[in-house]
Amino acid sequence: MDAFIFHNPTRFVFGPEAELQTGEQVRKLGIGKVLLVYGQGSVVRSGLLARVKASLDATGIQHCELGGVLPNPLSNLVYQGIEQARREQVDAVMGIGGGSAIDTAKAIALGTRYNGDFWDFYMAKAQPADALPVITVLTIAAAGSESSNSSVITHEKSLLKRGCRTDFNRPRLSLMNPTLTYGLPNNQKANGVSDMMAHIFERYFTNSKDVTLSDELCEGTLRTILAAGPKALAEGDNYAAHADLMWSGTLAHNDTLSPGRQQDWSCHGISHAVSAHFGAAHGAVLAVLFPHWMQHQLSHDVARFERFAVQVMGVDTKTGDEKSRAEAGIRALRDFFNSLGLPSTLGEFNVQEKDLERLADDAPYTAEGTIGFFRPLRREDVLAIYREAL
Amino acid sequence: MDAFIFHNPTRFVFGPEAELQTGEQVRKLGIGKVLLVYGQGSVVRSGLLARVKASLDATGIQHCELGGVLPNPLSNLVYQGIEQARREQVDAVMGIGGGSAIDTAKAIALGTRYNGDFWDFYMAKAQPADALPVITVLTIAAAGSESSNSSVITHEKSLLKRGCRTDFNRPRLSLMNPTLTYGLPNNQKANGVSDMMAHIFERYFTNSKDVTLSDELCEGTLRTILAAGPKALAEGDNYAAHADLMWSGTLAHNDTLSPGRQQDWSCHGISHAVSAHFGAAHGAVLAVLFPHWMQHQLSHDVARFERFAVQVMGVDTKTGDEKSRAEAGIRALRDFFNSLGLPSTLGEFNVQEKDLERLADDAPYTAEGTIGFFRPLRREDVLAIYREAL
Repeated sequence: MDAFIFHNPTRFVFGPEAELQTGEQVRKLGIGKVLLVYGQGSVVRSGLLARVKASLDATGIQHCELGGVLPNPLSNLVYQGIEQARREQVDAVMGIGGGSAIDTAKAIALGTRYNGDFWDFYMAKAQPADALPVITVLTIAAAGSESSNSSVITHEKSLLKRGCRTDFNRPRLSLMNPTLTYGLPNNQKANGVSDMMAHIFERYFTNSKDVTLSDELCEGTLRTILAAGPKALAEGDNYAAHADLMWSGTLAHNDTLSPGRQQDWSCHGISHAVSAHFGAAHGAVLAVLFPHWMQHQLSHDVARFERFAVQVMGVDTKTGDEKSRAEAGIRALRDFFNSLGLPSTLGEFNVQEKDLERLADDAPYTAEGTIGFFRPLRREDVLAIYREAL
Repeated sequence: MDAFIFHNPTRFVFGPEAELQTGEQVRKLGIGKVLLVYGQGSVVRSGLLARVKASLDATGIQHCELGGVLPNPLSNLVYQGIEQARREQVDAVMGIGGGSAIDTAKAIALGTRYNGDFWDFYMAKAQPADALPVITVLTIAAAGSESSNSSVITHEKSLLKRGCRTDFNRPRLSLMNPTLTYGLPNNQKANGVSDMMAHIFERYFTNSKDVTLSDELCEGTLRTILAAGPKALAEGDNYAAHADLMWSGTLAHNDTLSPGRQQDWSCHGISHAVSAHFGAAHGAVLAVLFPHWMQHQLSHDVARFERFAVQVMGVDTKTGDEKSRAEAGIRALRDFFNSLGLPSTLGEFNVQEKDLERLADDAPYTAEGTIGFFRPLRREDVLAIYREAL
C-alpha cells in the first residue's frame, strides 16, 4: 500500500425521494443562492427540476438556471455559466443530471472564482486556488462525478476533451435517488455500467504492491455491478439493482476502493478522442477499448489479469494455465458488455482505419510521449489498440 | 439497501512518517492552538509526542498537553481536559494514541463547547450542538475512533461505560503511520483485530434487505483482517500487514462498509459492563462474547450466518447443511481468536457466576427493555450469553 491522502467531504443523501431534501440540506451549508445546471430538458419533463426548485423555494434559497448541457459537454456553455454565476452572484453551482451536467457545474464553479480562462485548468496550465461549492442531484449512475475530484470538458474549437482533477471538484452535497434512473433507456444504463467498471479498472490494474485490502474492495464492487447491471436493464423498477449501481458508481470514482494504489488512466486517455471526434458515448467507447487494452497489457502482469479473471469474472481456477485463465477473463468481460448491448468495435462509431492517426495524435501524452502508469502507452501502443478495436 | 446519509469529512494522511506532516496539515485547518491528549507515556517514550510537537512548532502552532488517559478512559480526565481547554483557549483537541486517547479528546471537544455536564451526551440526556475540532495521531489499529462518529467513556463514580455518537465526533484530520504500531505487544494487536472485526459484525448481522454491495465490502475487509492479523503478530515489522490492519480498522467503524444497513450493537452493549467492572480490554471481551452472541442469535437468520461462514471464514459450501455450515463458521471464528492468543471465557477476566446479574443490570437497555436491532436482546438473553461465555 503506497502512502496516501484521502479526503472525501461530500455529504451523500441517498434513497427514494432524496431530492425532496435539497432545500433543507443546502440551507445547512449556509448557501443563499444557487445556479442550477442541467441538460437537454429531461429533468424538466420528468418534473425533477420542479421538485428541486420547490424544495429550494420552501427553504428560501434563491436560484437561477442554465439548461442545455450536451453529452460530452462543451466549453461554450461553461463560459456562459461563468458569466451568469458572476452576474447573478450565486454562492454555489448545482449540477442536476448525469456526469455532463455535473462536470459542467464543476467547471463553472472553478471558472467563476478565476481571473483567467477556466480551460487553463483542463490543459494543466494552471491549478485552481478557489472555487464555488458544487452540489449535485444525480440522475444517471455512471460517471461518479457526484463524488469524484474530476471534471471532463470538450473544448468547442479544438475538440480536445480533457479532464481537471482537483479537491475543489469534490461536491459538498450529493442527493441520490435511485428511482430517478428507472426510466433511462437501456443503452444509457449499459453505458453507465461500462463507465463505472472502467473507473475501477483504472485503479485495479496497478504496479503498487501489497494492495490486498483495496483489491478486495474493487473486486467486491465489480462483482456487485456484474450482478446488478443486467437486472437493472431487465427490470426497470428493481430498486435494489438500481441502488447497487448508483452507489457502486460513486465508490468507483471517489477513491474509497483505491487508497494507496497507483492509478493508470491510459484507457480513459485514449477513449476521449473517439468521443470528441465521433460523438460516441463515453461508456460505449470504454466498453470497446478496455478488453483490447487488457489484451495489449496482459504480458505486463499476467498474475494480476488472472486474479481479475478468477475473482471478478468467475473463471475457474482449475482450467488451463495462468495466461489462458487471464485471457478467458478478458473474453468474459467482452461477452458481458455484449450481453448488455454495448458495442464491441470502433467501427460501430463509424471510425475507419484512416481516422486512427488523427485520433492517436489527440491522446494526452506526457512530455515523455506516454500515457498512463501501469505500462505506459506510447503512440504506437495507442495505434495498435485502436487497430485491434476497429 | 435502506435510505441513508453518509458524511465522512475526515482528511486522512496515511503512510510512514505521516506524523511529520502534523504541523502543515493542522495549519491548513486554520487552527492556532491545540490541546494534545495522550495516555500513560508510551508516546513520550517512543519520541512520537516530541515529533508531533516539533512539527507543530515548525509551523508556529501553539500547544498544551494533558497526559494520563487510561484504557477504558474515565470521566475525571475529561472534566480536567475541558477546564484546561477553556483556560488555555485552544482551537482544537488532538488525541495521540489509540481509542482511549482519541475518545477522551472527543469528549473534551464536546464538553468545552457545552454549558452543562459533558456526561449528559453519553447518557443521551442531551444532544451536542457544537464542539471543538478533533484531530488524531493514531498509534493502535483497533477502535476506529480516528474516523468514527463515536466516543466511549466510563463514568468514574457509577462505572457506567457509555458511548456518544454524533457527527461532531468525526475528526477533521487523522495522521496514520502504520509503523507506529510495529512495537505494540501481541496481545494489544490481537485485541485490535478483535475490536475491528466486531465493528464490522455489528453492521454485517442486519435485517436490512438487498445489501449485496455492502456485504461484499464487509466480507472483503474481514478476509483482509483474517490474513493480516496473524502476520502482524508474527512479523513485527511487516509493513503491509500493519497497514492493512490500520486502514481496515478505520473502514470498519466509519460506515464506508455499511451505508444503508441497520446496525445492531447489542454485543458491544453487553461487553462494556465487563470492561468497566473487571478492567478487561475491550477487544478481548468482544473476542469472548461474539462467538456466543452468534450462537445465541443463529436461529434468527441461519442464511446470514452461513453466508458469513462461507464468504468470510472459508467454510466449504459442499459440507453439511446450512445450519452446520453456519456453526462451523462460528467455531472457525473462535479458533481464529484463540490462535491470536485471545481469551475464550469470561472466567479469564475473573468474572464469576455471582457477578452475572450485576453485569446484566448495567447493559444499556432501551425503554422497551431491549438492546440492539438484529434480534433485540432482553435481559434473559444477556444473562444466557454471559453464562455460555463463563
